[in-house]
Amino acid sequence: MSEITLVDYLIEQLEKLGINDFFGLPGDFNFNIVEAIEKNNNTNWIGCTNELNAGYAADGYAREKGYGAIVTTYGVGELSAINAIAGSFAEYVPVIKIVGVPATKNIANNDILHHNFAEPNYYAFKDAYSNVTQTTAYLTKENAKEEIDRVISDLINYKKPVYLAIPDDICEMKIKNEPNITRLKSDEKNLVKALNHIMDLLKKAKKPTVIADVLCERFEAKKELIDFLNQTNYPSTTLLMGKSLLNEDVKSYMGIYLGKKWNREIYNYINTSDCVASIGAVYSDLNTFGFDFSYNPSSMIEIKGTYCVVENIKYNNVLMKDVLIELSKIAPVFNSTFPKEINPLDANVEEKELKSDYIYSKLQEFIKEDDIVFSETGIVEFGFAPMKLPKNIKLNNQVLWGSIGWATPACFGACIAKKDKRVILITGEGSHQLTAQEVSSMMRYNAKPIIIVINNSGYTIERVLCKNPMDEFNNISSWNYSKLTEVFNGESWSCRAKTNEEFDKALEIAQTEHKNKLCYIEAIVDKMDLPQFAKLTYGNKLSNIPLNA
Amino acid sequence: MSEITLVDYLIEQLEKLGINDFFGLPGDFNFNIVEAIEKNNNTNWIGCTNELNAGYAADGYAREKGYGAIVTTYGVGELSAINAIAGSFAEYVPVIKIVGVPATKNIANNDILHHNFAEPNYYAFKDAYSNVTQTTAYLTKENAKEEIDRVISDLINYKKPVYLAIPDDICEMKIKNEPNITRLKSDEKNLVKALNHIMDLLKKAKKPTVIADVLCERFEAKKELIDFLNQTNYPSTTLLMGKSLLNEDVKSYMGIYLGKKWNREIYNYINTSDCVASIGAVYSDLNTFGFDFSYNPSSMIEIKGTYCVVENIKYNNVLMKDVLIELSKIAPVFNSTFPKEINPLDANVEEKELKSDYIYSKLQEFIKEDDIVFSETGIVEFGFAPMKLPKNIKLNNQVLWGSIGWATPACFGACIAKKDKRVILITGEGSHQLTAQEVSSMMRYNAKPIIIVINNSGYTIERVLCKNPMDEFNNISSWNYSKLTEVFNGESWSCRAKTNEEFDKALEIAQTEHKNKLCYIEAIVDKMDLPQFAKLTYGNKLSNIPLNA
Repeated sequence: MSEITLVDYLIEQLEKLGINDFFGLPGDFNFNIVEAIEKNNNTNWIGCTNELNAGYAADGYAREKGYGAIVTTYGVGELSAINAIAGSFAEYVPVIKIVGVPATKNIANNDILHHNFAEPNYYAFKDAYSNVTQTTAYLTKENAKEEIDRVISDLINYKKPVYLAIPDDICEMKIKNEPNITRLKSDEKNLVKALNHIMDLLKKAKKPTVIADVLCERFEAKKELIDFLNQTNYPSTTLLMGKSLLNEDVKSYMGIYLGKKWNREIYNYINTSDCVASIGAVYSDLNTFGFDFSYNPSSMIEIKGTYCVVENIKYNNVLMKDVLIELSKIAPVFNSTFPKEINPLDANVEEKELKSDYIYSKLQEFIKEDDIVFSETGIVEFGFAPMKLPKNIKLNNQVLWGSIGWATPACFGACIAKKDKRVILITGEGSHQLTAQEVSSMMRYNAKPIIIVINNSGYTIERVLCKNPMDEFNNISSWNYSKLTEVFNGESWSCRAKTNEEFDKALEIAQTEHKNKLCYIEAIVDKMDLPQFAKLTYGNKLSNIPLNA
Repeated sequence: MSEITLVDYLIEQLEKLGINDFFGLPGDFNFNIVEAIEKNNNTNWIGCTNELNAGYAADGYAREKGYGAIVTTYGVGELSAINAIAGSFAEYVPVIKIVGVPATKNIANNDILHHNFAEPNYYAFKDAYSNVTQTTAYLTKENAKEEIDRVISDLINYKKPVYLAIPDDICEMKIKNEPNITRLKSDEKNLVKALNHIMDLLKKAKKPTVIADVLCERFEAKKELIDFLNQTNYPSTTLLMGKSLLNEDVKSYMGIYLGKKWNREIYNYINTSDCVASIGAVYSDLNTFGFDFSYNPSSMIEIKGTYCVVENIKYNNVLMKDVLIELSKIAPVFNSTFPKEINPLDANVEEKELKSDYIYSKLQEFIKEDDIVFSETGIVEFGFAPMKLPKNIKLNNQVLWGSIGWATPACFGACIAKKDKRVILITGEGSHQLTAQEVSSMMRYNAKPIIIVINNSGYTIERVLCKNPMDEFNNISSWNYSKLTEVFNGESWSCRAKTNEEFDKALEIAQTEHKNKLCYIEAIVDKMDLPQFAKLTYGNKLSNIPLNA
């Protein structure tokens, strides 16, 4: 049996999952790990400007490539990244968090080391991470090989982040090169029981419906979902997190579910269904637009990544993919009519001053098949929610975790993951300020996204939600956004658009003259300008905002 | 008994500690808290560009004003700040972390909310914080008043961060306005026992020595320390964290302790002492320059903030201040000779190209009485370590926690804390990139520090520490630093210095023509340029770096 160093073993196993790029920052506790990544012919080190951004980048990478990895130093580095990992945990994005920690001999000595406390606690940060990861491991000489195999297995099987701490002095220890990574399989008996139970409900359903959502993508069951829908013709919708899962190419796709304020017929249809099959659905406040459902999902059919709940009975170890494959073979076909509400956004071309409604309707034309899109948390999500999208695009958002600042570095991660694709980022300027320096990493690594920063002079979503929109705390520093790229050096093109004409021109230039550069467009709109769907959603809170609706 | 809303009560108690400014970002779970801060006539809301920066700013504020506060939203906001709070925990900086969390009714319903997981865990982030704070509290209707009093008491008594979660729907609940904040007092019996034990050792000591360090300042015993030294004439030194505690005005001050590579006579004196009294000392790897001591501190005399250890016997509930006051009355006076090594840095004026040694020797002249200085982690600490400082300056560093990026926002916090003082920040450009956007907050809030960014083209300290200095991972994006302030708008002056002459001129302009503006100086040095003390410290690792030493 051949032997291999511990870090080389880890890197090789991760590379098999498609992780060719490791995001992070170096530090004296992780040199051995970073050096091994640089030395490996199949892996690259991608240095970020800070650890939170590195975590977001790894998340964006994983959303596009299946898995992602971030490497930081101990204490300061790992804690700086924890919010990004918690976001990946919330949204089922499998990212491995690798951290270089003090040598086992320092731990044995109880030494007071930098990046720890004056009364040392070497495990404090692992313990913090145990709240936001599927599992954690702190390697020792004795457990190293088994623990690496275990955390990678969990990463694969549960599509959630895992945490791995490697003491500096065992990185180059030799271990057996004999991977033992186990992939979860459906429990045959539970699968049969779950299918029987689901079939009982489907057979007697008069008006069955499917709500498909983001976990179908995360658990690699998008194809099986579409096959199932094409086979059964069940009327289907998606929630916002899974918006780009389905489109009009799927005959039974009704349109996106956005509560009762938009696509009202779909809302009515779903809420009068006698059998809703929720497939990979996240029933959160924002993803459901206020829990506005007439039914309890788990009292009907809920198909999750690794289990099902049918009439409140849970069937463990039943994989979504297997359930969908089997159901496609046996589920009854639906033959009645259902609503269809896939209506393109409409630009109001009469006004010259740039407004959100104009921006999103133009983006709807601009976004093309195969594009990767990042939509930041906040007002931007409301712009994208009702948009008609072409097929084969991937819309990434963070509707559940909702960490402002995520989209900019996540977009960078996606650029690294898919070098041949066009990547488009749309962010509000309030969110962008949190993580804007990652644009410099894009330029450093030759990433060429189109970045659209919508400058509405502050936290507009919060103006909408708080008591007094003009409260000082909703204001932020006013930056010259289009000058940022000059600070960061490297090749790029940037501009500022205040009118419809300028915005049109900016998009045009970004896809022609400067399509081989990073393009950075600042789009300026009014402080209280909202896309139509946001106005409708928050209408009752907007007494002092003029509504066109 | 008068009543008051819960948040107003909290704000009033914190304001009594000198917290007039609350750093943070708003979010829909903390609106009630932020609004109350804005409404209070004695407190200000200071909006930061991201939560990690807000945490660092609160840390910098607390270092200057005694206490600090950061307010964030739930999940995303609080986790983004956790590394800053962990740093305050490591370095005994009392910061209160306030977070607005979901309403008690949502928690009771087990609702899936944004900023949490699809299988909710409302306490996950509090649990994460429990690893890096003195104590945590999650308020309920029933415990609110008692828990607020308890965490503020701990903040005061232990000089460490505390965590307070306030559900949105109880912020405006009325509670009794009857503060019950308890201040730790020395246990009289333990104090007498500790003093007797210490006196036993001091009386028979032939060569007693004092190592004073940063905790004297944190536990508000700087004056008592100096009185004690002036009274007893014990030869004294400081470690790097406490560098600005003592200076030549204290007759018995020998100079700073920097291991055996600098001030060698002090090193020898300390390590041949028969009785070392460590007062508020942090014996960490970097603060001691490699644990290079001949004695075990706790086997002699260790006086900590709230306890003492004498010959390995611990005396609990004995306050540093009380111990020093009592010892000043009874300790024997020392009358022998001791070394004195307070040597100013010397500029090498023969070279024209700017070098670190020139920068630090010039800063030594530039820094004046009453200045507040922030020295970032990394090479900069080695530049400051041997510097001769004027009296009454405060040198802030983060030698134990060592989180790069800390100094820029911490400097901002100090500017808010002490509006009438000159604040000077010296940072490497590698560290600066992590948190550079907080310069925009400085400009927004009219802070006018002098910022010196030493641009040495990457992570130079890591080039020194890793196997191969030129490894790619030590490179970073090359920014036009002096253009940053143009992006951030607002009044400022910035320049770039590559020669001694340019650097001299920049400092001169910053203290004359532009002294009423934020001044931003990029000082460019070579990739492997090190201040003399760093060369001496890492000499054996620097085979490929030319040494002048």
